[in-house]
Amino acid sequence: MISVDEARGRILEALRPTPSEVVALAEAWNRVVAQDVVARLTQPPADVSAMDGYALRAEDGGLGARLTVIGEAPAGHPFGHGVGVGEAVRLFTGSVVPDGADAILLQEDATRDGAIVEVNEAVVQGRHIRRAGKDFSVGDVVVPRGRRMTARDIGVAAAANHPWLSVHRRPRVAILATGDEIAMPGEPIPPGGIVSSNSHALAALVRAGGGEPVVLPVARDEHAAIGAVADAVAGIDMLVTTGGASVGDHDLVIEALKARGMTLDFWRIAMRPGKPLLFGQLGAMPVLGLPGNPVSAMVCAILFLLPALSRLSGLPGAPPPVTSAILGAGVKANDQRADYLRAAIDLDSAGRIVVFPFAVQDSAMLRRLAAADALVLRAPHAPALLEGAEVGIIRLDSLGL
Amino acid sequence: MISVDEARGRILEALRPTPSEVVALAEAWNRVVAQDVVARLTQPPADVSAMDGYALRAEDGGLGARLTVIGEAPAGHPFGHGVGVGEAVRLFTGSVVPDGADAILLQEDATRDGAIVEVNEAVVQGRHIRRAGKDFSVGDVVVPRGRRMTARDIGVAAAANHPWLSVHRRPRVAILATGDEIAMPGEPIPPGGIVSSNSHALAALVRAGGGEPVVLPVARDEHAAIGAVADAVAGIDMLVTTGGASVGDHDLVIEALKARGMTLDFWRIAMRPGKPLLFGQLGAMPVLGLPGNPVSAMVCAILFLLPALSRLSGLPGAPPPVTSAILGAGVKANDQRADYLRAAIDLDSAGRIVVFPFAVQDSAMLRRLAAADALVLRAPHAPALLEGAEVGIIRLDSLGL
Repeated sequence: MISVDEARGRILEALRPTPSEVVALAEAWNRVVAQDVVARLTQPPADVSAMDGYALRAEDGGLGARLTVIGEAPAGHPFGHGVGVGEAVRLFTGSVVPDGADAILLQEDATRDGAIVEVNEAVVQGRHIRRAGKDFSVGDVVVPRGRRMTARDIGVAAAANHPWLSVHRRPRVAILATGDEIAMPGEPIPPGGIVSSNSHALAALVRAGGGEPVVLPVARDEHAAIGAVADAVAGIDMLVTTGGASVGDHDLVIEALKARGMTLDFWRIAMRPGKPLLFGQLGAMPVLGLPGNPVSAMVCAILFLLPALSRLSGLPGAPPPVTSAILGAGVKANDQRADYLRAAIDLDSAGRIVVFPFAVQDSAMLRRLAAADALVLRAPHAPALLEGAEVGIIRLDSLGL
Repeated sequence: MISVDEARGRILEALRPTPSEVVALAEAWNRVVAQDVVARLTQPPADVSAMDGYALRAEDGGLGARLTVIGEAPAGHPFGHGVGVGEAVRLFTGSVVPDGADAILLQEDATRDGAIVEVNEAVVQGRHIRRAGKDFSVGDVVVPRGRRMTARDIGVAAAANHPWLSVHRRPRVAILATGDEIAMPGEPIPPGGIVSSNSHALAALVRAGGGEPVVLPVARDEHAAIGAVADAVAGIDMLVTTGGASVGDHDLVIEALKARGMTLDFWRIAMRPGKPLLFGQLGAMPVLGLPGNPVSAMVCAILFLLPALSRLSGLPGAPPPVTSAILGAGVKANDQRADYLRAAIDLDSAGRIVVFPFAVQDSAMLRRLAAADALVLRAPHAPALLEGAEVGIIRLDSLGL
């Protein structure tokens, strides 16, 4: 058996980021930028006022001084002339500070009477003026390549004057469910059959991870049907299969794809749920074979497919984020396999996260999985822990998983 | 001045969830279900094997017993007959357990020789059999209404045989930026002007919150242009404006919309950045007026617009999630306003989150905002805290903000 980290490392090592494409800024949220976003202008473009008020020479702005208002400069309408001795120009947040002025008299510190404004609070040179380039200057990298664009990054890329961005293509992940017993939701169900859930849950997980799912038709247990899959992977960045990874007699899919040239490693991973995992290549396309049990499939997808999606998207492909929580109930010692316990979370009176592993951890109980808020991480050979001990958890709710 | 919580409460009270629409299961990820998803079948549909092996009568499965294999039942192909004395049926994970059988002999505990299978490990009645309905039964609520569908929920809705789901419509949020100085990215910039960033950052935030942004053309500082906005809000669930919320002379937009019948409250909120906030109604449509400063606009959007999007989407509209972190540097005491300090986070050697507030907290510095990992919450009149103290933070990275 190999460890979860080793398996993930081997998968990530085999993957390359997708090539780039150009998308409109408005479509770039949550995409991974493929090139540094470099400022095309300086922000602010000139010295601007941070407040509503009057621009004047600092030495003219003593308490009780009276100045002549020679004009106004709304934002976007700079004042065309300089400000001389005893003069002031009305301006607003974002207005360019006119030449000659080096101080701002705040509106609330001024009394206006016709063309005259009186100073009720002495000004301070440079105060309330935002200097040109205070936020960024032409040529600054405002969003580094390899970053997934947040809403704030979209704002800064806009301010830096980028209507288009070069981003990694969304990884296209094909999902193959197999088996004569599987029906799509709403379609006729064969005797003793069940409705396909893995394909749809995995497709949603691919979306959550920033990829584009391609749900393949369910492959019947026939060589011809499966051969068709191998012929239909053009433009696919990764193939994910579920089931067929046991030592059973019915892993026809794997046999059929191997006959088409797929190289495939079978790994026994020291984890629960989900010991068996397949990883290989069909031509240039990586193939990840997840267990068929729905809970095992989802847990393995969180641990291996999500990082793979990150890597394909141009990110490093780190493990899912682990946060710490307090155990609400004791857990027993582990054997040689890592455990990922489905659990509910709650907040205690101090606002700390308390986690309650479910008493039953059946790997076929999809509804219990859906009700879980988190997975509790238990390392191989971890000792028993009492209520109140600190553990690492993977939050499922916040990831949309 | 009113508190952040009071302002948020008033906004949420005025909002109603959007009506529902029907979407395909494959499109339902991250949508909020408008009706309970009720199981249309029982899962498993019958008693099924949890492992590969043989079905037999428990009393026939003692150590060393030899049984006659009378057939096999792959998943999806139930065995048509019962299992009698001394008989066994080959089956696989998910296969229906034939009538008469009440135990499973695991494949690894069996030796097969032609039609005979020998028991190497005594079976236990009922073990490795998943009972019909163990996961869920017809009529069970498998996803409750008002829940945002996770990938796991998609899986359970599929297993419960739902090809379509009734979900709340994505709230359509129109975003209006105003001002003669504003240009769209890539378009000609007026003298002293800047490129619009708020509209695009807010549009991305609306997407992150599950809404559908409608970016309106920038409104020039003219009554006619602004009147056109009031005429173009059909089908919009909420209007968000930026700027025009100061006491300046140039809040033409507000004046013009008021002339069109918009009721509007002006609130001074005890927070920094972003004191002024507008909230009102234009006909049936709620209007939220955010500050014009990009940092203030984003922080206010996180505190007020995100919960509003949740509420419109059919969720309760809770404040953004707060997690706890350790201060990496001391902070001074607060005045009467709550502070939302932009900060970087790091993990200490114990894996705890350590947060470092930026030294400069200028509300116009968009690039610093984009570099922040979190907002540190500081309540009004909060005392000074030393390095190592615990504080509440809003994680920005994980929300795609």
